Amino acid sequence: MSLMRIGHVNIRVLDMAASINHYCNVIGLEKIDTDEAGNVYLKGWDEWDKYSVILSEADSAGMNYVAYKTENDADIDAYSAAIKAYGIDVEDVPAGEMADCGRAIRFALPSGQTMCVFAEKVAVGKTVGTLNPAPWPQDVKGAGAHWLDHVLLVAPLDPPNGVNKVAENCDFLSACLDFRLTEQVTVGPDADIQACAFLTLGSTPHDIAFVPGPTAGFHHCAFYLDGWGDVLKAADIMRMNNVKIDITPNRHGITRGETIYFFDPSGNRNETFAGLGYLAQPDMPVITWSEDQLGTAIFYHSGELNEAFTQVYT
Amino acid sequence: MSLMRIGHVNIRVLDMAASINHYCNVIGLEKIDTDEAGNVYLKGWDEWDKYSVILSEADSAGMNYVAYKTENDADIDAYSAAIKAYGIDVEDVPAGEMADCGRAIRFALPSGQTMCVFAEKVAVGKTVGTLNPAPWPQDVKGAGAHWLDHVLLVAPLDPPNGVNKVAENCDFLSACLDFRLTEQVTVGPDADIQACAFLTLGSTPHDIAFVPGPTAGFHHCAFYLDGWGDVLKAADIMRMNNVKIDITPNRHGITRGETIYFFDPSGNRNETFAGLGYLAQPDMPVITWSEDQLGTAIFYHSGELNEAFTQVYT
Amino acid sequence: MSLMRIGHVNIRVLDMAASINHYCNVIGLEKIDTDEAGNVYLKGWDEWDKYSVILSEADSAGMNYVAYKTENDADIDAYSAAIKAYGIDVEDVPAGEMADCGRAIRFALPSGQTMCVFAEKVAVGKTVGTLNPAPWPQDVKGAGAHWLDHVLLVAPLDPPNGVNKVAENCDFLSACLDFRLTEQVTVGPDADIQACAFLTLGSTPHDIAFVPGPTAGFHHCAFYLDGWGDVLKAADIMRMNNVKIDITPNRHGITRGETIYFFDPSGNRNETFAGLGYLAQPDMPVITWSEDQLGTAIFYHSGELNEAFTQVYT
Amino acid sequence: MSLMRIGHVNIRVLDMAASINHYCNVIGLEKIDTDEAGNVYLKGWDEWDKYSVILSEADSAGMNYVAYKTENDADIDAYSAAIKAYGIDVEDVPAGEMADCGRAIRFALPSGQTMCVFAEKVAVGKTVGTLNPAPWPQDVKGAGAHWLDHVLLVAPLDPPNGVNKVAENCDFLSACLDFRLTEQVTVGPDADIQACAFLTLGSTPHDIAFVPGPTAGFHHCAFYLDGWGDVLKAADIMRMNNVKIDITPNRHGITRGETIYFFDPSGNRNETFAGLGYLAQPDMPVITWSEDQLGTAIFYHSGELNEAFTQVYT
Repeated sequence: MSLMRIGHVNIRVLDMAASINHYCNVIGLEKIDTDEAGNVYLKGWDEWDKYSVILSEADSAGMNYVAYKTENDADIDAYSAAIKAYGIDVEDVPAGEMADCGRAIRFALPSGQTMCVFAEKVAVGKTVGTLNPAPWPQDVKGAGAHWLDHVLLVAPLDPPNGVNKVAENCDFLSACLDFRLTEQVTVGPDADIQACAFLTLGSTPHDIAFVPGPTAGFHHCAFYLDGWGDVLKAADIMRMNNVKIDITPNRHGITRGETIYFFDPSGNRNETFAGLGYLAQPDMPVITWSEDQLGTAIFYHSGELNEAFTQVYT
Repeated sequence: MSLMRIGHVNIRVLDMAASINHYCNVIGLEKIDTDEAGNVYLKGWDEWDKYSVILSEADSAGMNYVAYKTENDADIDAYSAAIKAYGIDVEDVPAGEMADCGRAIRFALPSGQTMCVFAEKVAVGKTVGTLNPAPWPQDVKGAGAHWLDHVLLVAPLDPPNGVNKVAENCDFLSACLDFRLTEQVTVGPDADIQACAFLTLGSTPHDIAFVPGPTAGFHHCAFYLDGWGDVLKAADIMRMNNVKIDITPNRHGITRGETIYFFDPSGNRNETFAGLGYLAQPDMPVITWSEDQLGTAIFYHSGELNEAFTQVYT
Repeated sequence: MSLMRIGHVNIRVLDMAASINHYCNVIGLEKIDTDEAGNVYLKGWDEWDKYSVILSEADSAGMNYVAYKTENDADIDAYSAAIKAYGIDVEDVPAGEMADCGRAIRFALPSGQTMCVFAEKVAVGKTVGTLNPAPWPQDVKGAGAHWLDHVLLVAPLDPPNGVNKVAENCDFLSACLDFRLTEQVTVGPDADIQACAFLTLGSTPHDIAFVPGPTAGFHHCAFYLDGWGDVLKAADIMRMNNVKIDITPNRHGITRGETIYFFDPSGNRNETFAGLGYLAQPDMPVITWSEDQLGTAIFYHSGELNEAFTQVYT
Repeated sequence: MSLMRIGHVNIRVLDMAASINHYCNVIGLEKIDTDEAGNVYLKGWDEWDKYSVILSEADSAGMNYVAYKTENDADIDAYSAAIKAYGIDVEDVPAGEMADCGRAIRFALPSGQTMCVFAEKVAVGKTVGTLNPAPWPQDVKGAGAHWLDHVLLVAPLDPPNGVNKVAENCDFLSACLDFRLTEQVTVGPDADIQACAFLTLGSTPHDIAFVPGPTAGFHHCAFYLDGWGDVLKAADIMRMNNVKIDITPNRHGITRGETIYFFDPSGNRNETFAGLGYLAQPDMPVITWSEDQLGTAIFYHSGELNEAFTQVYT
């Protein structure tokens, strides 16, 4: 069994037209399909599966669920068994319930968010094709994001009351779903409280990550850019389109990624994440950040957390 | 007569050793000389004149004066006459009083800061030489700044009381010293109050600039980097050296420059300024920013002034 | 009197439609106008004057003439007198003969190419405007060149027969038209033969340059890009559009510029030239390249001349 | 069983001192150890295992062998059995024979080059450590390469005589060692001859690749750089150190990588390879390049093979 990567994320938006404009003309995704319920399916130009983002109109912003793709259909049974053995309920999702996908399983993370695992999705190919492909599509829009890279979720952390859903998520995903811890922040007088956890499936720095907060939630979904030059272009384009930027171009200490945090028109936080970072292979030693360097860990240049992060520690 | 560029800036520092480390190992200047009074002379690797920064130990941080270089010795007399005719006192500075320089003149800007004009300074050559030079010196330190690029000064603005030293400085430098206005911010109900002014001597976006504040002062001196890639390297190096960063990598709307604001160990604000921007030639139309876009004008990505700027408008 | 910059170049092309596609969709200029004779006028998005390139359909490729812009109308008389005093004929060009321009003068360089000087041209403004301008236009095409930067011309060099039109051009432009030598290649047993000359008007490394060849000619016209990231994008776009590339991304030793040489559909060589290089002010010492470093001077990375250059030395 | 990545390459060099200077001061590796036989062990700053390059003094340049690292010791037995079942001899290498490594297996590729597989090597950690690491080491030398990325080997291709060791290597590595084909060039009248093959183990575009030639050989080993800005710096540094550059900065069509080919002092070809390229996951469709686009496939900007490649097709 072999979970490969984030497959798609289902985002709730308040205004579909404004959202499509944002995800397509600012981030650079392509609109691929709309279903009968009005959900809109989007993909990055460098993705071959049919979609990686589903926008669903709703009364409140947030993430409905995140789905990860595994290599083989049989993996689904193995993962299902492992999750049940861990003590977490698993729901079978029949083929087709997730649009253009084969059968899947659905379960809740220890922190509560919904995750799915599937093995098959209709493939439509990269925009540049598979025969003598150009390195990028000449008519790419906006920031020209390559693919959906990862999600960052908020997990409750309340050490005095023995609550640490960050660590529970990390343990669960490592034990049952082949995620591997690459970086962590440890806090507390003995530096033994895992306050942030970054986990990977392949060799990129993270496919999912958890930061602490008072309540479980969705922090952001991130879209991949090649490098720092693309970050400048992306930030310029965001301003030209009156996108609210949360964190201007910065480097993450964790992952070394070059980042911008910004908001979609519904208030969902997005990230453009650039840079390979490093090769996070199974034998790479885990990287740890200490509490006194928490600011540097998150935002390397400023060395300070912004409000979005500090509020989770109060 | 032809004023060419900023020649040097004299900065007051509280701790000389820490300052030398900052200007040399972080910004990348080279220490060239120390005089009997303990003043330290520094230059960028791409400058040919002997120095562009003078550090002087003092009890308070700030700028003692800024000196501009003109092409010919005879220009000094012409500029002196023009300044006196404008109604501003001019003091003659004998050759040698400014170290390694010929005769100069000294006068106060309408906002009060001291400016000098000189025509001759001992030249020691670029670090890469003039015969088959490498594009940059292989042993360059820190951010590897090329040269001192400009200063930004604070000038009192108090429209209700008829005070606008920004506009007075702009008028004076244009009328007497061959500076040309490239960009401005205009505020007020009739958008007729020049609240910021950026002036050039050659074809870079600015050689001096003024922002408003309650009292006259020194905002920052800026050092030139080639481009956005150098900005990332510089910001990384600042963090590695525990330099306090004021504004992480950002673009200025005004000048299009790619910037970092940070502080030297004495609290003097520095900037690394990257990007050609544009060719600011004499016939380039003046660019104007309106009051509602003031944040964007200063920090394009965030679109918001930081505390250092907002305080000057209260 | 004060010559400011290259104003425009008139290029002969064999196929107007293919040429417009090349200059607009690959280089990124904007088509502004077409006159009754079918000449097409183009400008870069960062230029404010109405045009900088005139394409004229013809039976052979090449450059008809290059025009430089001076600051004031009265400069034209002063330059005319200086050129005549130097012993070169000057032709008066009435206002309007060069489209949308005021009066001009026309003369031949010692190497034979035609140069004009004018002071007035209709201004249409930068594409981004002068009120709260974006740093670049969001709908820019192709490589998104900012402006016409310089021309490089071939001048006969035949030392055994006492011919050195490179040096003659350099002397003429310095003596009569306020150009200043920034860099040169010197060859010969005594290293006293000026084989290449780069001259500037402002503070960019060159506004015109000369390389030696058996016969006078047009080597290339160059368009400005911001930096090395734009060079990669430009080279990718050239390949996507089947543009013939002469020299793939490289650095010039001379000027430090980051370059691509390529051909328009008629065989005219173009360059995209990136990077500020340095501040070429009047007191910057002249840089000299020796004959044994000729390859490095032209193409720093390969250290070798390509055929286009080696043929001129045989 | 799970092969992870290239572990190290053993390179023959003619002059050890010159080679150490090249690999350390130009490429930026660190010298870690020297054994009794005089072999020198080097690593990139971003690698945690003790070494990735072994330099061995010899009378001729070339590669002795390439070793790949697998995740678990037990994988070695499984791979050994698979290789033997495929019909290729396998030699057991006792622990310690490869310095600081556990037991290994050694075998010949169908094209003849020697490959080893091992699971354990002494780890010394990244230069930046695992506690609050800087994004890169401030005292990094030369091009600052992160890690050994891949090797490209030459395999005999002689279709008229039924010889295609490129395809045989591809089949063998896919069948026995968990390599996956990411890109290929197909040639011949029916486009059914696999003339180049690029294979990966993780999600980078290639961990090994094969190009055709008259005789089996070593084409190059590649070292990873972050991006295009690092490519410019690397090319500048190569010229400053008189390194012979084979291919100046270019993009590969295959892998999208940003590249420089150059030679070590013994004539071994090196590459600096930059850019993530794409996520080469198991379900990514294979990319194929056709014979008429062979030049573009290899060197995207020039669209032409250089001598090193064209000779292999004659």
